[in-house]
Amino acid sequence: MMTAIAMRSSSQSVDVQRRGRVRSQLSGFLFLLAAAFVSPPAVSAADAPADQLPSWNDGAAKSEIIDFVTRVTSEGGQDFVAKEDRIAVFDNDGTLWTEQPAYFQALFAIDRVKAMAPEHPEWKDKEPFASLLKGDMAGVAAAGEKGLVDVVMATHAGMTTDQFSKIVTDWFTTARHPRFDRPYTEITFLPMRELLDYLRANGFKTYIVSGGGIEFMRPMTEKMYGIPPEQVVGSSIVTKYTLDGDTPVLSREAKIDFIDDGPGKPVGINTFIGRRPIFAAGNSDGDYEMLRWVTAGAGPRFGLIVHHTDGEREWAYDRQSHFGKLDKAMDEAEQRNWLLVDMKNDWRKIYAFDK
Amino acid sequence: MMTAIAMRSSSQSVDVQRRGRVRSQLSGFLFLLAAAFVSPPAVSAADAPADQLPSWNDGAAKSEIIDFVTRVTSEGGQDFVAKEDRIAVFDNDGTLWTEQPAYFQALFAIDRVKAMAPEHPEWKDKEPFASLLKGDMAGVAAAGEKGLVDVVMATHAGMTTDQFSKIVTDWFTTARHPRFDRPYTEITFLPMRELLDYLRANGFKTYIVSGGGIEFMRPMTEKMYGIPPEQVVGSSIVTKYTLDGDTPVLSREAKIDFIDDGPGKPVGINTFIGRRPIFAAGNSDGDYEMLRWVTAGAGPRFGLIVHHTDGEREWAYDRQSHFGKLDKAMDEAEQRNWLLVDMKNDWRKIYAFDK
Repeated sequence: MMTAIAMRSSSQSVDVQRRGRVRSQLSGFLFLLAAAFVSPPAVSAADAPADQLPSWNDGAAKSEIIDFVTRVTSEGGQDFVAKEDRIAVFDNDGTLWTEQPAYFQALFAIDRVKAMAPEHPEWKDKEPFASLLKGDMAGVAAAGEKGLVDVVMATHAGMTTDQFSKIVTDWFTTARHPRFDRPYTEITFLPMRELLDYLRANGFKTYIVSGGGIEFMRPMTEKMYGIPPEQVVGSSIVTKYTLDGDTPVLSREAKIDFIDDGPGKPVGINTFIGRRPIFAAGNSDGDYEMLRWVTAGAGPRFGLIVHHTDGEREWAYDRQSHFGKLDKAMDEAEQRNWLLVDMKNDWRKIYAFDK
Repeated sequence: MMTAIAMRSSSQSVDVQRRGRVRSQLSGFLFLLAAAFVSPPAVSAADAPADQLPSWNDGAAKSEIIDFVTRVTSEGGQDFVAKEDRIAVFDNDGTLWTEQPAYFQALFAIDRVKAMAPEHPEWKDKEPFASLLKGDMAGVAAAGEKGLVDVVMATHAGMTTDQFSKIVTDWFTTARHPRFDRPYTEITFLPMRELLDYLRANGFKTYIVSGGGIEFMRPMTEKMYGIPPEQVVGSSIVTKYTLDGDTPVLSREAKIDFIDDGPGKPVGINTFIGRRPIFAAGNSDGDYEMLRWVTAGAGPRFGLIVHHTDGEREWAYDRQSHFGKLDKAMDEAEQRNWLLVDMKNDWRKIYAFDK
């Protein structure tokens, strides 16, 4: 299991086969699901003035962003970028919304196992479902990779795309974040939502490019971020066209299709968008290749890393974290001219509900 | 080989595994590449009045289109559709541009083999390259499926995405259609380009959803159709993120990733767009599942089939054609309320260069 985690966290092996990585990445992700239910609570607030980006404190980070946007939108300037090439890509977990105490999609999977348990009496004797239902996360982890894949597939496959969309939508309207006791849709970073708005107001087309499930995000991204479904790139399982009676449906199969993480992100960007963005934002080594790909292009480029430095209002973590490990990308940030956003000092507010 | 062709042409087996179909579909496609170099020439013209869609003759087809667009854009009307849900998808080969005497991408592959031959002296003794270079299409076909896959991979893989984009762009600026002796970019259907413009003017977002290679189309679709790269869905080979020295590149691998044809089209639509379009246009049984998927949704829906009935100005073909076989979708058009556009009678002009 540790090998799988190491593989997922490491971005060194850049040319490994995309599909070859799928299983080990998934295994890493799922192990973390079981392992990460230990984390700190507590809330407070901060304050500072603002203008275009009111939740950003005045300072170098905010200035760099505004300077970049001003340059690429100044017609006749040497850094002017035509509107159609103003593409900005954002990671989701840890970049647009919180990823602690675990990826929200992992919390969704756990809730689903609980909700589905009455229809699955056999789970009482079947791992890792039995342990999960008892709240025994060590037992879940003990079931190994195959058991954890079983949890994802039991909760994400075996229904049509329309059915899954409804399940996700229902969960978001009822489930509440364990620390803040608010809907997950409110656990988004206000400064990043302002940044999305600011970029769009300046002609940018904004995309999510996330390791999370594409169909887990799409029902909610318009409402939460103003990003329509067709501008969401994510991981996917295989879907299949079939007929239910005479009605065409797309059924979700228990098989991984694409993992949009690490070196998968530039691939996903190329597949879905077909041009190289000029702006990328992430928060972990899973965004390293995306940041490299985006900022290696010709002309003005912007790479941004959200550094989780605020253990009071949110969480403080980087190199040692189970979720959103930030190590290599942080080491290279200065050399590659990526902006490291210090959440604690650069953000006046983190959530809209902060005082 | 005939089995492979039959498999590709048939849309009956709707629940076949997407990736399982890849090889046989590719084989069918490639066999046709070799088989289809027999076809009729000749040009003439037609004439009629017009308004919103000036190259469409007045009549039922044009009226039905205008009536639909009027209904879905009439605020307060019972068929009104919100702007963000006005998604229209168009097949490309045979729907937006001509697909005779062969798919343009097949003609591109042949030109590439000829252009690359000096760097590949071994091809003189290696099938199907040897036959292809001698113009012996029967010899090409005799090399079977594997040989034909070799042709596609030799011409489409083994370079970066940027390099392939340049090769494609260069080809489109120099190559000429064998019958019309004009650049392929001019062999597009003027009435369909007007339809794209008309839909966009009414708030629609227009997409291409084609069995053709996504990276073969993307460099040209903005110029030809006003459709940006991010609104092109197509077939793909595997791409891989890697480093060339310290420069990130995406390399094109000799391996099929996704075939966006038949039941693959609704899957591609769901993956790339994430919502169900309300308008679909195609011309062959390869569009059958897309037409089914789109027109089975709730609310107003429009399915359109371009029927190639004009052997003088373009080509006349349907049930027996090697390219763009139209059989099952035509049989069901009336029952499913799909508009069958009669190219000869409904279109005043076919190409912009028609008198």
